[in-house]
Amino acid sequence: METKELRRIDERKLRKFTQDVFLSMGCPEHDAQLAADVLLKADLRGIDSHGVARLIGYVRLWDKGRINPRPRIQIVHETPSTATIDGDAGLGLVVAPFSMKIALEKAEHVGSGWVSVKNSNHFGIAGYHALMAIEKDMIGMAMTNASPLVAPTFSKERMLGTNPICYTFPAGKYPPIVVDMATSTAANGKLEIAQRKNLPIPSGWVQNKDGQSSLDAGELKNGGSLLPLGGDRDHGSHKGFGLSSAVDIFSAVLSGASYGPWAPPFVAFLEPAKDQPGEGLGHFLGAWRVDGFRPVEDYKRNIDQWIERFKTADRITDDQSVIIPGEPEDLAEQMNRREGIPLVEAVINDLNSLAARFNLQAIQFS
Amino acid sequence: METKELRRIDERKLRKFTQDVFLSMGCPEHDAQLAADVLLKADLRGIDSHGVARLIGYVRLWDKGRINPRPRIQIVHETPSTATIDGDAGLGLVVAPFSMKIALEKAEHVGSGWVSVKNSNHFGIAGYHALMAIEKDMIGMAMTNASPLVAPTFSKERMLGTNPICYTFPAGKYPPIVVDMATSTAANGKLEIAQRKNLPIPSGWVQNKDGQSSLDAGELKNGGSLLPLGGDRDHGSHKGFGLSSAVDIFSAVLSGASYGPWAPPFVAFLEPAKDQPGEGLGHFLGAWRVDGFRPVEDYKRNIDQWIERFKTADRITDDQSVIIPGEPEDLAEQMNRREGIPLVEAVINDLNSLAARFNLQAIQFS
Repeated sequence: METKELRRIDERKLRKFTQDVFLSMGCPEHDAQLAADVLLKADLRGIDSHGVARLIGYVRLWDKGRINPRPRIQIVHETPSTATIDGDAGLGLVVAPFSMKIALEKAEHVGSGWVSVKNSNHFGIAGYHALMAIEKDMIGMAMTNASPLVAPTFSKERMLGTNPICYTFPAGKYPPIVVDMATSTAANGKLEIAQRKNLPIPSGWVQNKDGQSSLDAGELKNGGSLLPLGGDRDHGSHKGFGLSSAVDIFSAVLSGASYGPWAPPFVAFLEPAKDQPGEGLGHFLGAWRVDGFRPVEDYKRNIDQWIERFKTADRITDDQSVIIPGEPEDLAEQMNRREGIPLVEAVINDLNSLAARFNLQAIQFS
Repeated sequence: METKELRRIDERKLRKFTQDVFLSMGCPEHDAQLAADVLLKADLRGIDSHGVARLIGYVRLWDKGRINPRPRIQIVHETPSTATIDGDAGLGLVVAPFSMKIALEKAEHVGSGWVSVKNSNHFGIAGYHALMAIEKDMIGMAMTNASPLVAPTFSKERMLGTNPICYTFPAGKYPPIVVDMATSTAANGKLEIAQRKNLPIPSGWVQNKDGQSSLDAGELKNGGSLLPLGGDRDHGSHKGFGLSSAVDIFSAVLSGASYGPWAPPFVAFLEPAKDQPGEGLGHFLGAWRVDGFRPVEDYKRNIDQWIERFKTADRITDDQSVIIPGEPEDLAEQMNRREGIPLVEAVINDLNSLAARFNLQAIQFS
């Protein structure tokens, strides 16, 4: 986040604006509210790359006819604990929460619930969907495949997305534990920041078009690729590749969506590859009832002790304790709800261009 | 694997020997067969660190009264798709396959099945258990927590095990895809090899007792720790830490086993920490029916295409294609079944000491 150029906007104003853009695309009221809620959650939690910064991207996909604003989302296959859902090319921001709700209902009945989704597109932050499990005292999981940007170990070809995995665990006295991670070393957003600032990036993030390690984020625009978590073989990139492959298979091979290099790109200026093997992007969502395994109060006593023990683990330097997964995002959410959501100039400009196009009031800063 | 000092032994002979050792510990016939099968599978698949090399370790735990050779393994809590199992301090090599069988039965009935396990110990390779799903055209999953050796990002304290995650995906014409990985940068076995050969290790594998990065595998014996996948913060170690945390919580907090730094060590010379918060080690095992999501033949057509497409992705160097997860282990298994299982001298000596102790015939090389 570049502090110099950012301005804060009240989350309710930004939410209303975002909703109005989705309404202008022809989304029904409920869907527009839901899609705005997913994007705003990313901004509130400080995951700027997945928030309203992407709003114009969804509009451009809709312009290309690649998003159906009034989808007929339906279950096409199911068992008591599993289902496959056809998103009918709807917004991933709407298709994924709909699907997660089905997973939660199944978990309610038989202890766990799993939904694979095809014919969808970018679903925002995985954390939004997995967090839906928390209020029901369930453990949540969310994965999605994504635009191909990542090369497998030993390859120079972009074959996989940054394919995130998210697990959410309810706690007792503390905020939920949220493990929400791209399976590449670095997510695309971090590279964009380095590139805007003209800074070198750490080794193991990117390789150039010939498959040579590079410290220049710009190589990604010259045919280079992101690297799987681990960076190179010596540092375990085959593990990042394995995880990313698993996400791709769960999300797309299991559902009938398009996988690997065929995953349709989020940016509207790139056409999806020819001869798609499936329909759209895929997601994989699910939940386990904690009390499917043991009484919730026993689990919560133990998870609270887990958090306390890890938080107080011996530090390397006095000024930095262990960070519990999800803790920074929870702190960001508290601050951003109070002080407004920080936006950089480029995003403000995009939003104002949407305001002009759809005859909406330009966004107002507090 | 050190080729210089290894000798090959026919897998049936090694299996019979291993079984006899478990029988000598007092295991029932079926359990001894099963435990030997799990260890042999690791050796067959070339994962030497988890095969018969560990047999003497299990015997030592039994000597200390920490393994119950005749456990009463039972379901203590369940729903149609979930269960918690108390392993009664039995061999993890027996408790885990028993538990996975329950998960598969549940999946048979309701589409997916999940079992968390407490009061167990080291379960061998995660892949064995997850692979049990394959013959039923299910996707398998296995996780376990383990002896604390890994420090969280920003900490110098050993708080987590190498906590593996395994996913197995059935294929059509090809061997199953097997993602089976420690969530640390490197597993302990690789460090032992570097140390025996007196070679430096790559950065990001180990830190010393003060939390400084080290290239000396020996630091692990001087109070140092393994590092989570990623190695350091810049390279995504918070992701490895997040995954490892998830494995610990699924395996131990959800089941009522001991978690984090309390996980009981595999080596018998270390006593479990005082004031255990739970019972023994924990595992988390499960499976999804492929046809809980779509017809198996559709899935298999797509997964075969996935494999073919990744196998032929553009190479960085002509001599190395992309490695499909599980491919090297499958090739090792074919070779080792044919030519015998390679054993290093140190392991042969351990096995012969067990032969002497239990009045078994010393192992015979072919």
